Amino acid sequence: MSCNWGTELWDQFDNLEKHTSWGIDFLERYTKFVKERADIELSYAKQIRSLSKKYHPKRSREDESRFTWCLAFAATLRQLNEVAVQREELADNLNTQIVCELTRYTHELKTERKTHFQDGRRAQQHIESSWKQLESSKRRFERDCKEAERAQHVSDRIDLDSKTDGEKKQQAAEESRKDYVTSLNQFNQDQHQHYHTLVPVIYQRIQDMEERRIERICEAMRSSAEAERKVLPVVSRCLDAMMDAAESIQPRMVSLLWVVVEVYKSGFDPPGDVEFEDYSATMRRSISESSYLDNRTEGRRHSRKLWPFIRKNKVHRDTPVCSVHSFFVSV
Amino acid sequence: MSCNWGTELWDQFDNLEKHTSWGIDFLERYTKFVKERADIELSYAKQIRSLSKKYHPKRSREDESRFTWCLAFAATLRQLNEVAVQREELADNLNTQIVCELTRYTHELKTERKTHFQDGRRAQQHIESSWKQLESSKRRFERDCKEAERAQHVSDRIDLDSKTDGEKKQQAAEESRKDYVTSLNQFNQDQHQHYHTLVPVIYQRIQDMEERRIERICEAMRSSAEAERKVLPVVSRCLDAMMDAAESIQPRMVSLLWVVVEVYKSGFDPPGDVEFEDYSATMRRSISESSYLDNRTEGRRHSRKLWPFIRKNKVHRDTPVCSVHSFFVSV
Repeated sequence: MSCNWGTELWDQFDNLEKHTSWGIDFLERYTKFVKERADIELSYAKQIRSLSKKYHPKRSREDESRFTWCLAFAATLRQLNEVAVQREELADNLNTQIVCELTRYTHELKTERKTHFQDGRRAQQHIESSWKQLESSKRRFERDCKEAERAQHVSDRIDLDSKTDGEKKQQAAEESRKDYVTSLNQFNQDQHQHYHTLVPVIYQRIQDMEERRIERICEAMRSSAEAERKVLPVVSRCLDAMMDAAESIQPRMVSLLWVVVEVYKSGFDPPGDVEFEDYSATMRRSISESSYLDNRTEGRRHSRKLWPFIRKNKVHRDTPVCSVHSFFVSV
Repeated sequence: MSCNWGTELWDQFDNLEKHTSWGIDFLERYTKFVKERADIELSYAKQIRSLSKKYHPKRSREDESRFTWCLAFAATLRQLNEVAVQREELADNLNTQIVCELTRYTHELKTERKTHFQDGRRAQQHIESSWKQLESSKRRFERDCKEAERAQHVSDRIDLDSKTDGEKKQQAAEESRKDYVTSLNQFNQDQHQHYHTLVPVIYQRIQDMEERRIERICEAMRSSAEAERKVLPVVSRCLDAMMDAAESIQPRMVSLLWVVVEVYKSGFDPPGDVEFEDYSATMRRSISESSYLDNRTEGRRHSRKLWPFIRKNKVHRDTPVCSVHSFFVSV
C-alpha cells in the first residue's frame, strides 16, 4: 500500500520537522562513524606498513638471500606491506566514496529540507492571514447587523430621518454581508487548497526527500561493506603467499644445510696421522723446531691452530680437494 | 644428497658458532616481529570495538527500533564488534601459539647450543693437550738423541767411563724414543677420534639443532598465516551480514514511510469548509464570539492553531476516524 504523508500527517508539520532533523542527525552520525572507521584503518595500515619496513632487511645481504627462511620472512614482510596497501585503499575508499559523498549530500539535504519547511511555513502564514481576513469581515458584518437592528428599532418609533439612517445601516450591513461572504468563500477556497493541494505537495516533497535519504544511507552501508569485502580476496592471496613462503622452507632443508657448507667450507681435509721423526737415525742433524711437514711447506712458517681451523680462502665444495695441500704445522 | 656438517665443515667451528648465533638472533627477531604484529592487531581490535560501542545506541529507543535504517546501523555495529573479537583472537593466538612458544623454544635452543659448543671446546682442549704431550716427548727424544750422539763422539775418543756414560745416554734416548712413540700413537689415535668421531658427532648435533630451528621458523610462519587466515571467513560472514542489513532497508521503504505515519498520525481529518453565520437573520441575538461550531463544542473554548495541528492523543491509523470529531474553533 503506497504511503502519502500529505494525507496521513497533514497536521504533523512540527513532528515531521523533528523527524527529518533526526534523519539528518543520523546521516551525520553515520558519516562521522565511517570517517572514524577510515581513520582506524589508516592508522592500522600505517602501523602494519612500518612494521613491514622495520623488519625488512635494509639491503639484501648476500648471505641472507641464500637462506630460504630469510627469503620466507622477506616474502612475509612484502605480503604484509601489500595488506597495508589494501587497508590504505579501504580507508581511502571509505573517505572518498562515503564520507565525502555523504557530507556533500547532507549539505544539499539540509538546504532542500530548509526550502520545504519554509514553503510550509509560508503556506501556513497565508492561510492564517486568510482566516484573520474572514474573522474581521465576520465581526464587521455582525457589528453592522447589530447597528442596523438598533436603527430599525429607533425608526419604528420616530421620524423619517431616522428611517433614512436605518436604511443606510441596512445597506451597510448588506455591504458587510457581501464582504463576509467573499472572505468566507476566499477562506474556504484557500483552506481547501491548503489541505488538499499545498500541504500534500510539500509533504510529498518531504517524503521524497526522506526516501532519498534512506536510499543514500542504504547505499552508503552497502558501499562500506563492499569496500571492505574487496579487501578480503587480496588479503587472502597475501596469506596464501605467506603460507607458500613458509611451506617452501622445509622441502629445501637439505639444500639449506648445503648452503651453510657452501658459505663456510674451507675445502681442506682434516689432518692425517703425524709421522714419526727418527732423530736417532739422523743424530748429526741440528736440532730444529721443524716438523715432519716442513719439506712440503718450503720453509714457510705459520701458526697451526689445530681446531678450529678457519681459512679465509675457501675452496668451493665442488672443487676437488688437493691431495697435497698446504698444511702448515709449527710448534 | 644428504649433508654432513661434521665432514664438510670440520674446520669451521667459529663460523658455525657465528652462524648458529645469527640463527638464534633471527628467531628472536621473528618472535619480536610477531609480538609487535599481535600488539598492532590488539590495538586495532580495541579501536574497532570502542568505535562499535561508541555508536551503538545506549539503550534501544522504541522509535529507533522501528526504523530499518537504525536497525541496519545497529546490525553493522554488532558485526563490527564481531570483527574486533576476531582480531583480538588473532592477537591472542599470535601471542600464545607463536610468541610464547618461540620464546620458550629460543631459551631451550640457547641452552642446547651452549652445550654443543662447550663439548666442542672440550674436545679441542683435549686434542691440544695431546698435541703438547707429543711435542714435549718429541723434543725430549730429540734432545736425548743429541746428547747420546755427543756422548758417542766423546766415548769414541776417550775412556771406558765415558763409554758407560755414552751407553747410558743411548739408553735414555731409547726410553725417550719409546715415550715419543707412545705419545705419537696416542696423539694420532686422539686426532683420528677427534676428526672422525667427536667433531662429526658434535657437528651433527649442531646440524640437527639448526634443522629443528628452521623447522620451528617454518612452523611459526605457517601458524601465523593460518591464524590470520582463520579470521577471513568470519570477517567475510560479518560483511555479508552488514550487506544484508543494508540491503534490507530499501525493499521496506513503503513500510518505513508507514512507520513514520504510525508514529505521528493524529487520526484527525483536515477541517472542512467554514459555514456562513447569518447575523442579519438573528439580529436580536446578542453579539458573541462564538462561531458556527459552538453548538457542537458545548461551550468548550480552545485555541485553534490552524496549521500545524498537533495532537498528543494520537489515534491509530487503523482506527476509523470519527466523522463527528471534536473540532474546536475560537477566535
